[in-house]
Formats: sequence, C-alpha cells, structure tokens
Amino acid sequence: MDYQRRIAALRAGMAQRGLAAYLVPADASMEYLSGVKRVYRNYTHMRQNCLELAGLVITPEQVLYFIPRLTGMGTLPFLEGTAVTKAVSIPDPDLTGETWLRELKALGLSGKHIGVNRDIRAQAVLMLQNVLEAKVTDESDLVDSLRAIKDEEEIALMRKNAEIADQVYHEIMPMIRPGERVRSIEREIERLFETHGCSCPSFPGECIVLGPNSGPIFGMNYDKIEKGYTVAFDFGGMYQGYCSDFGRTVFVGEPDRELVRYHELVMKAQLDAMEALKSGECTGQMLNDIAHGVMDQAGIGAHFIHRLGHCIGKDVHERPFLAPGEHTVLKPGMTFTVEPSIVVVRRCCIRVEDVVLRTETGYECLNRITKDIVVVEA
Amino acid sequence: MDYQRRIAALRAGMAQRGLAAYLVPADASMEYLSGVKRVYRNYTHMRQNCLELAGLVITPEQVLYFIPRLTGMGTLPFLEGTAVTKAVSIPDPDLTGETWLRELKALGLSGKHIGVNRDIRAQAVLMLQNVLEAKVTDESDLVDSLRAIKDEEEIALMRKNAEIADQVYHEIMPMIRPGERVRSIEREIERLFETHGCSCPSFPGECIVLGPNSGPIFGMNYDKIEKGYTVAFDFGGMYQGYCSDFGRTVFVGEPDRELVRYHELVMKAQLDAMEALKSGECTGQMLNDIAHGVMDQAGIGAHFIHRLGHCIGKDVHERPFLAPGEHTVLKPGMTFTVEPSIVVVRRCCIRVEDVVLRTETGYECLNRITKDIVVVEA
Repeated sequence: MDYQRRIAALRAGMAQRGLAAYLVPADASMEYLSGVKRVYRNYTHMRQNCLELAGLVITPEQVLYFIPRLTGMGTLPFLEGTAVTKAVSIPDPDLTGETWLRELKALGLSGKHIGVNRDIRAQAVLMLQNVLEAKVTDESDLVDSLRAIKDEEEIALMRKNAEIADQVYHEIMPMIRPGERVRSIEREIERLFETHGCSCPSFPGECIVLGPNSGPIFGMNYDKIEKGYTVAFDFGGMYQGYCSDFGRTVFVGEPDRELVRYHELVMKAQLDAMEALKSGECTGQMLNDIAHGVMDQAGIGAHFIHRLGHCIGKDVHERPFLAPGEHTVLKPGMTFTVEPSIVVVRRCCIRVEDVVLRTETGYECLNRITKDIVVVEA
Repeated sequence: MDYQRRIAALRAGMAQRGLAAYLVPADASMEYLSGVKRVYRNYTHMRQNCLELAGLVITPEQVLYFIPRLTGMGTLPFLEGTAVTKAVSIPDPDLTGETWLRELKALGLSGKHIGVNRDIRAQAVLMLQNVLEAKVTDESDLVDSLRAIKDEEEIALMRKNAEIADQVYHEIMPMIRPGERVRSIEREIERLFETHGCSCPSFPGECIVLGPNSGPIFGMNYDKIEKGYTVAFDFGGMYQGYCSDFGRTVFVGEPDRELVRYHELVMKAQLDAMEALKSGECTGQMLNDIAHGVMDQAGIGAHFIHRLGHCIGKDVHERPFLAPGEHTVLKPGMTFTVEPSIVVVRRCCIRVEDVVLRTETGYECLNRITKDIVVVEA
C-alpha cells in the first residue's frame, strides 16, 4: 500500500487549512494512513493506560505513533514498511497522558491549530485545548475524502473479499434446512470466513429468519429454521484489513406469490439503483430515492426500513452513505453496498446486498453469485 | 437496578461542580446510569447518521436519550423501567447533528458549563463549544466513581457470572488434548457461554498455547495443542450486561520442575496480593507491587509483562486498575481481576485470573474452581 502517497495527500490538505498537526485514533484511519495495524474494537471497553490517546499525530515532518507499552507489543515489532517516523511506547505508570503531552509539546504544537478526526476522544481534545492551548477543529473530511476513493490495490482486495463472501454463501447452503439453529449457522459463517483467510468478521453477521412465529417488532429473529420462513443473510469478513458485506435471501419451502413478488421488487430496486450509475453523476441520496421509489410505487415502501447502503473499505460502514440527506457524488473508485430489503413483521425478510465499485462509465458489481430465487426443500 | 439512585448521585456531583448537563455516549455508562441498552461495539466501525452523537444528555430535570432512528428500533420499544425522560429518535436525513443541537439549545444549554465522559467524540465536544458556545470539561471521574462501587444486585450478577466462567472452564476441558486446534477451542468457549445465557463474549477470548514451536515474541500463539505445551485461558462472557474474565493454565503432559515452580509462583503472586486486602487499605499499585515482587524475588520478574489486574463490571476493563501509578484505594464493593502471569518465549504461558470482590474485612474470590495443577494426558 502506498502510505507515503496518502500521508502526502493529507499533508497537502493540512497545509491548505493551516494545520500544524492532524490526529487520528488507533483505528482504521490510522491503518489506512500509515500501515500500522489498528487496535480492534471489542464487545466491551478494555481500558488500559492511555489507550484513549493511542493513534497517530501527523505533522509536516513526522508521523508519530502513540501506543501503551503492552498493546504495542503486538504492533511495535512490525513497523517496517509503515509511514511511522517515530513510535512512542507509553510506559505503564502513565495513566493520565503525560508522555503524550510531553511529546506534543516537544513538537512545538503548543498554541497551534490542530485538526482531528471526529473519533478522537473528548479527553484528548480537552487536553489539547487546556494544556497545549491549541486551537482544535474537526477536519474529518480530509481523511474521509482520501479513504472514500479506493486505489487499484484496495480494489483488488475488495474484489477478492467479495469473492470470499460469495464462497461463504455457497458453502453455508447445506446448513439451511428445517430444524437448524440460527446461531449455529451464524457461528459456521464466521468459521467459514476464517477458513478463507479472514482475520475476523467485519461485523457480527446475521442470519435473519422471519416467518409466522418470529417476533412482534421489525427484525426480531426466529431462532430456528422452519418451513415457510425466509432466511436473509447479512454477513461479512475482514480480509487483509478490508471488509466485505453481503446479503441474499433463501426460501424454506416454495414461496407463495406474494413472497415471489417481494423478491422481484427487492432485486428490481437494487438493479434500478445500480443501473442509474450508467447515466452519469449520482449522489447517495439519488440512488437511495430510486430504490425506495420502487418499493413506494409497489405500495410496500413502509417495509423498506433502512437506507440503501453505505461506502465500505477498511470499515464496514464508511462515508458517504447511500441515504437521504447525502449529497456527495459517488465517484469512480468508490466502493459501496447496494442493499434494499423488505421486513414484514411475522412474515418475511427479503434482502440482497452487493458491494459495488463505481467506475468511469457505470459500475461493477463485485459479488457475482446468483440473485435468482433460491428455495430449499422443507 | 436502581437507576434513579444512580442518576440522583450523578446529579449531586453535577450540582457540586456547577454543571448544567452531563453527556455520556451510548456505551456501558449509559446502560449503567439509565438502563438503556448500550450500542455494542463491533469489529469495525458501522457508521450511521449521527451514531457518534448517540447517548444520554442528563440535566438536573431530564434524562434525554439520543439515537438514530434505525438503531433505535432495537431499543426505543424497551424504555419502560429506564431512567429516560425523553427519547429523541434522530431522523435519517440528519447526517450532521441538527436534531441533537436543536434539542440541546431547547434545554437552555447554550453558554453553559457541560461535563462529559472521556469517550464522547471530538465531533460532539467541538459542536458543544462552537455552536452552543458551552464550556466543556472532562468529568469522567463522576461516573467512574459511581460505577466502581457495585451494589448488591450487581454483585449478585458478578457472582453468577464467575460461576458461569468456572463452568465453561470445566466444560471445555475434554477439548484440551493433543492435536486439537486452538481456534476450535476458542469458538467452543464462546458457544458454551451462550448455552449458559450469555449474550456475547465480554472480549475475544484467548486460548494461549505456548511451547517449543510457538512464536518468537511475547504472547505469540501456537495454533494447536501438543505435548509439552501449556494452555493458558483468558476468556469471559457477558451476562445480563455484566462481564466475567477468567484465567487458568493446563499442562499437556507432565510438567517439568521449572514449569511446576512457575505455576507455584503465579499462584503465590495471586494469593499474596489478595491476602494483602485483609490487612487494611490498599491501592491498585500496592497489590500490583506485591505480585510483581514475588516474581522479581524469584528472578523471573521480566516474564511478568503486564499489570496485575483491573476493575470489571459492565465493561471488562474498568478503572481503577491494579497497576503502577494507580493510587486509588480499593474500596468495599469494588470488583476486580487479580491475574499474574508468566510468559516465556518458546516455553510457556502460566496464568491465573479470578474476579475478586473487595469486602469490609478483606476479599471474596468470586471464581471457585480449582487452581491446583491440571495435567491432561499427552
């Protein structure tokens, strides 16, 4: 990955805005800019000394990487090839950020204008303001705009990723049969991703089973597979730091006419939105409106409860979104999901999701596996 | 849970410090204060409109809960019994926080002094300062100090939680045999927690297998079990919103004298630290020093690479820590881990971990399962 290009591009933006430094936490943006592996988020907080201050401080000359000593044991030996110019291992007894403040002062950042990514913690922002007397502004768009446009190497990984998701869908199919437990299927999906080289799921995948006895509110799952139920998948894996996100629907026993119609409408909503990309410039809102329009016109708009999609890359949901209010134009090199769905209480969930690459002339759908109706015997 | 008491206690602190409002994100602190289920963290970011602004705004009169509409579908129908006085569902097209700002202005918070928890995002802090012209300060200790002392109901859950972890250890034992894959064991541990009613792991559990062919740096795992290896567990589950965290070590084949000595030292380090609680007031640093002292005296201090422990409750790692630099006194009602370990490259990892309750007269070890040497046939 071309980390030097990315850091240079960020620095150009910093110079335009008069920023003496830019801060990102130890997340996907850090990994994107520098090649240093992010600190993975866990189910619950795992607090450690100064973990809230971990991440990069980028100046016109330096790329500093801050990490608590113990967490750093897993990353500090692997800095070759990254953009980091100085790694600071925060010693155990520093529970308040003295090390971080000392380094930032030594960089001459006191009283300067510092840009931050939106996910920097309140603690860090207030220390910059109160101790360093810096002016702090949210300049997230500098990094968002870089991350949104994938380069060739990233696109190759996203393509490979989509292939793996297709394969997992293919391989999970034998488990889709009456009597099978939903959680067993979900666990098997995660295991399958690992067998294809993924380090972890990109999000906790769902096998959404809806039918006559599923829950009383939108999305409430039934815990096993039965005849007459729909099985809608929503899953993804993390492959070499990039995410997949995938959806298809399987019918358990022959679907009735209404279910078949729902399936056709979901596929049409997706195709219409994707095909619009061939006509020229589109914003996220425009595609969202096209897909929602298909459902509205069919009189089932109320069942399409979410946005059409979101960009995807190192994080599973990135900006810009394919959603109301999103006026960003989808540009060549952007990868995003197109995922219309219908959720009908005590009846069905029908969904489809592909990762799509915006090209100069239209789009490329990175997932290739069939969207035809799939029925398993019940 | 007595959410009204917690909110009242927070408000007393707010009044003392002249805070017109207090903000926590949609995390364990929100769940602790109000009873509204936290938004679980995922492997990667799952951005949605205004998810960064989700959480509570607590004023002397109100407890406002902000949540994007779609995420709210899973929580808004369940607000009965929580401390929330007003729920604000952020509409889909609001991508920038207009709804949040409007509500905060309507509360009369412009120009006021607002306290925040350390994990509030930079975006929120800067909007409070720049749009509301509020004075923002980090008042995390107000919530930290409440969360640190567990009440009877919480202690009952922590006790039940420890029992489940003991049981999972007991049930995983048949899988500990030569040839078994580490990842299969880890997955089975997660499955076992679910069978005992846990909603998810409290963190990604580890089965740390070290021996002659394990990795060249501290902690690098071997991917299957073999004779002569040590199997050290580090796992926990989330039961009714509370976390467990557990550790024991199993020897595959009879351990040699050095391994037996290491095991004795780890158990001694743990016991000495815990027993010190009977002598009166102790800080986290004091207990940490006792345990590290045992290893240092035995000449193997360099192999004990981490702090002795951390508080635990709704998050798996909470403050205060049992670590150098931690001068907070451990008080009755606090629950924390005591987890000394030895990690020797290409040799072994020996660890033990229990959740301990500080009592008026000493301590209660919530985990009850044996710490004797366990050897499986190889």
